[in-house]
Amino acid sequence: MKEFMLDKPSYQKLLRNYQQLNQLTLLDLFAQDNNRALKYTLKVNDMYLDFSKNNITDETVDHLVNLAHESNLIEHIQNMFNGCKINNTESRAVLHTALRTIDNLGDKRQITVDGKDVIPDIQHVLHKMHKFSSKVHTGEHLGHTGKMITDIVNLGIGGSDLGPVLVCQALKPYCKNNLNIHFVSSVDGYQILDILSELNPETTLFIVASKTFTTEETITNAHTARTWFLNNTNNNTEAIKLHFVAASTNTKAVTEFGINAADNMFQFWDFVGGRYSLWSAIGLSIILYIGFDNFKELLAGARAMDEHFLNTHELQHNMPVMLALLGIWYINFYNYSTQVISPYNTRLTRFPAYIQQLEMESNGKSVDKSGKPVSYKTCPVIWGDSGINGQHAYYQLLHQGTSIYPMDIILALSDKYSDKLHNQILQANAIAQAEAFMVGKTHAQAKAELIANGMNDTQADFLAKHKVFAGNRPSNMLILPEISPYYLGNLIALYEHKTFVQGVIWNINSFDQWGVELGKQLARTVLADIKSGKASKHDESTVQIINLCS
Amino acid sequence: MKEFMLDKPSYQKLLRNYQQLNQLTLLDLFAQDNNRALKYTLKVNDMYLDFSKNNITDETVDHLVNLAHESNLIEHIQNMFNGCKINNTESRAVLHTALRTIDNLGDKRQITVDGKDVIPDIQHVLHKMHKFSSKVHTGEHLGHTGKMITDIVNLGIGGSDLGPVLVCQALKPYCKNNLNIHFVSSVDGYQILDILSELNPETTLFIVASKTFTTEETITNAHTARTWFLNNTNNNTEAIKLHFVAASTNTKAVTEFGINAADNMFQFWDFVGGRYSLWSAIGLSIILYIGFDNFKELLAGARAMDEHFLNTHELQHNMPVMLALLGIWYINFYNYSTQVISPYNTRLTRFPAYIQQLEMESNGKSVDKSGKPVSYKTCPVIWGDSGINGQHAYYQLLHQGTSIYPMDIILALSDKYSDKLHNQILQANAIAQAEAFMVGKTHAQAKAELIANGMNDTQADFLAKHKVFAGNRPSNMLILPEISPYYLGNLIALYEHKTFVQGVIWNINSFDQWGVELGKQLARTVLADIKSGKASKHDESTVQIINLCS
Repeated sequence: MKEFMLDKPSYQKLLRNYQQLNQLTLLDLFAQDNNRALKYTLKVNDMYLDFSKNNITDETVDHLVNLAHESNLIEHIQNMFNGCKINNTESRAVLHTALRTIDNLGDKRQITVDGKDVIPDIQHVLHKMHKFSSKVHTGEHLGHTGKMITDIVNLGIGGSDLGPVLVCQALKPYCKNNLNIHFVSSVDGYQILDILSELNPETTLFIVASKTFTTEETITNAHTARTWFLNNTNNNTEAIKLHFVAASTNTKAVTEFGINAADNMFQFWDFVGGRYSLWSAIGLSIILYIGFDNFKELLAGARAMDEHFLNTHELQHNMPVMLALLGIWYINFYNYSTQVISPYNTRLTRFPAYIQQLEMESNGKSVDKSGKPVSYKTCPVIWGDSGINGQHAYYQLLHQGTSIYPMDIILALSDKYSDKLHNQILQANAIAQAEAFMVGKTHAQAKAELIANGMNDTQADFLAKHKVFAGNRPSNMLILPEISPYYLGNLIALYEHKTFVQGVIWNINSFDQWGVELGKQLARTVLADIKSGKASKHDESTVQIINLCS
Repeated sequence: MKEFMLDKPSYQKLLRNYQQLNQLTLLDLFAQDNNRALKYTLKVNDMYLDFSKNNITDETVDHLVNLAHESNLIEHIQNMFNGCKINNTESRAVLHTALRTIDNLGDKRQITVDGKDVIPDIQHVLHKMHKFSSKVHTGEHLGHTGKMITDIVNLGIGGSDLGPVLVCQALKPYCKNNLNIHFVSSVDGYQILDILSELNPETTLFIVASKTFTTEETITNAHTARTWFLNNTNNNTEAIKLHFVAASTNTKAVTEFGINAADNMFQFWDFVGGRYSLWSAIGLSIILYIGFDNFKELLAGARAMDEHFLNTHELQHNMPVMLALLGIWYINFYNYSTQVISPYNTRLTRFPAYIQQLEMESNGKSVDKSGKPVSYKTCPVIWGDSGINGQHAYYQLLHQGTSIYPMDIILALSDKYSDKLHNQILQANAIAQAEAFMVGKTHAQAKAELIANGMNDTQADFLAKHKVFAGNRPSNMLILPEISPYYLGNLIALYEHKTFVQGVIWNINSFDQWGVELGKQLARTVLADIKSGKASKHDESTVQIINLCS
């Protein structure tokens, strides 16, 4: 049986390279090549990726790039951008990149799916969102009692939540209107009831973000919001039109809900997956919050990364490709199980959660495109939090734990919404952590420091054993000029394409998510059991817990 | 050389047991024993732990319990509670449990450290916090212009942040006063400037939470807050006394800052580690937010778990011990690398982050207490998010990824702050996920479903390959009666003691954190370099990034 990745000539070469490199530390590699930092730094649209603090040599890079070529990566990339139906289990094209081909960028490319150019539809919805958001901002769209909208509530979960949450949090300083934004994602009733308790139905606009308009969590919340609205407006069903809009494709259900589908339903298409949807109608909350011009900047930033990814055929200079291949190196050769994402900026606190969904839902698969089980590891666990906070929480394990955890450190060169000293301290910490992970500290160093501080030899010898850092821990450093719409677009698209490249190397379909089905299916039975107070056929543990809940 | 855990007789027995069990699925185990669910469910203070969906048999439990006995666990537990200096690298006692021995529980026990009973000091500070919070609540303590305090800002990071954030978020419905609470943790200037921009210096109270009063992030933020305050009060330095208080032990620095140390500095002791400090003066923000009576309930809940942990010598009935041993089983025998924490309640969204610090900072070590490198894995990566949100994000990988990720699912039986239907849906999902992880779905089942839905045989055969769930994925189910102060205290203490037990089995000191030192040390040099615009001696990559930031 053909094992996709394992059969590639470069795979065997990489295995041998790994055996050799495993004997050398990062410090050895820096000592061997004083051009290393410069050579292993890419700059794309003023965003830097310094990947020199990884356990690689030129040989590794060559073999990794060859592995990508042997997997026909460039062809796969072109197929995605051109609208081929690369999502083979659902027979769908994958065209979140098409959402970024907005008219003012002068794009004349046609992208056809089933013989139809998709660009006009995309531009139509974008225009419709622009128009709607302008009306809300200017007061042309008012609440049912004639008051300005003050609060936006996005009802959505997964891809209909994480993207808007990330962008609105990251770009809050770009919000120049007076709108507050709220996100309700969980079906936990407390979340929505708590938020509703502080809102005024006369000035609140709900966005129901669900492609199918059947997502249980979102629709349950939407009905709770609708009931609250009607209870507080003397059952004014007509007013629903002014206070509820939808990002959806289900005209019938949207209309039945009471929404004016013609004007206030914003469509997207089956070539836009949930975790790639912030660029589509799911971005309506973003447009309302930061304004349409900033949203266009976000698209333009993503588009710039798209162009780089599509057109840089010297793959060692292709930033998403290199980021992906470094991941492959650690997952499939070093056998590391996780990838840490450490943004050094509070506004990017939700970036790890966003990337967690993006990569784990895309590549958390164990069969290849043909359905054959793969015999190699695919997606690792992606995790992390604000880096500076992590230093006071889980970095202990990253430095002194019994495994190694590759890390992407993300920082901004300047921050006009911060303070110079604060930002310098933040940067210094990010840089010093990467250095510390690499250089470590020996017992002799630790002991000498303790003795210099006046400790006696016996005590110092003992304590120094606890203060040893093995070092040789790899990290990438991603440096943005600033956290702006443009560079955020750049950054998100970088990881989208990284995810795609890894899927190609692993020969998996990164665009379906059948793994979410079984739990939903079983939940229907369990819910019926809880409601009826009588457990149907399950294992004894499940029965026991259903009985407790009934 | 003696290898602590590996030398235990039970370790070898567990290895053999693992070889046998590895051949059996969870469904096999349920089929073999129809008493399994009941037998593997513990109930403590009305909180349930159903651990029957784990790859264990009675033999496993026996051997794991014996492993604990062979590690002298009971003696170690008693030593901790009795104030022995079990933090051997810092010569400190570990007495967060003593913080929970509050007078109204009728505790007459003396706990002495260095010949001194610690209880009176604990009670003194608790009383002082009670008094201070009452004054703020009643208006006896007013701002400098005579207005009621409306906003509390907790300035702290790591343990001085995560605990208060968790508790205040989880218990928000218990807040019956009109105070808003804000947390500033990162040194990122944007975070504090954004919060300050919405506050009124006349009605804001800052808590500077730093044991040493030297934590760089916290003190930088405190000075920025102080400058903001003075700028907005005509440099009224005297008024600082009314608007800044401290959870600290550094009287000199606190006084120099302008705080009234006698009245408004709340002490704690070197037997309280940062990640165990929410029960101490670090809990002042909690007391102000939810009130002293609720804080006492939180302590009482933790205390109840303490009593159970200390007094349940039949270790198979000891909940923290069993939770810990199951972790050992998966980490050291199954070689799983991570532990997922999945709370099914929005108010527990920060619980995974809290446990992440608790476990990873405590047990992310690779030398034993004597300083000898361990030859077995210690703490895994602890990660997770709100479970229902995870279902729409990373659960794809948990179900269909190439590794297995044990999970703790946490849910509440009732939620008076939610809605019945919402809560039932939430519960049904939690239960169904645990079921789905265990039972999986075969190719035949998936194919039959597709054919029943009208798909032809070839298509169904192909698609079903993508819809296979291997199943046999373990999970624990933790069931709280509700998310109340008492049960939250219970839950947190459960994981504290779990962490301690794992440290004992691994023979490591769970109470130091030397691994956070090196990064801090190097950051001082890097900060000086950035400020001076001139990189000192580093590797070329570090120099390059410093130059970009300068």
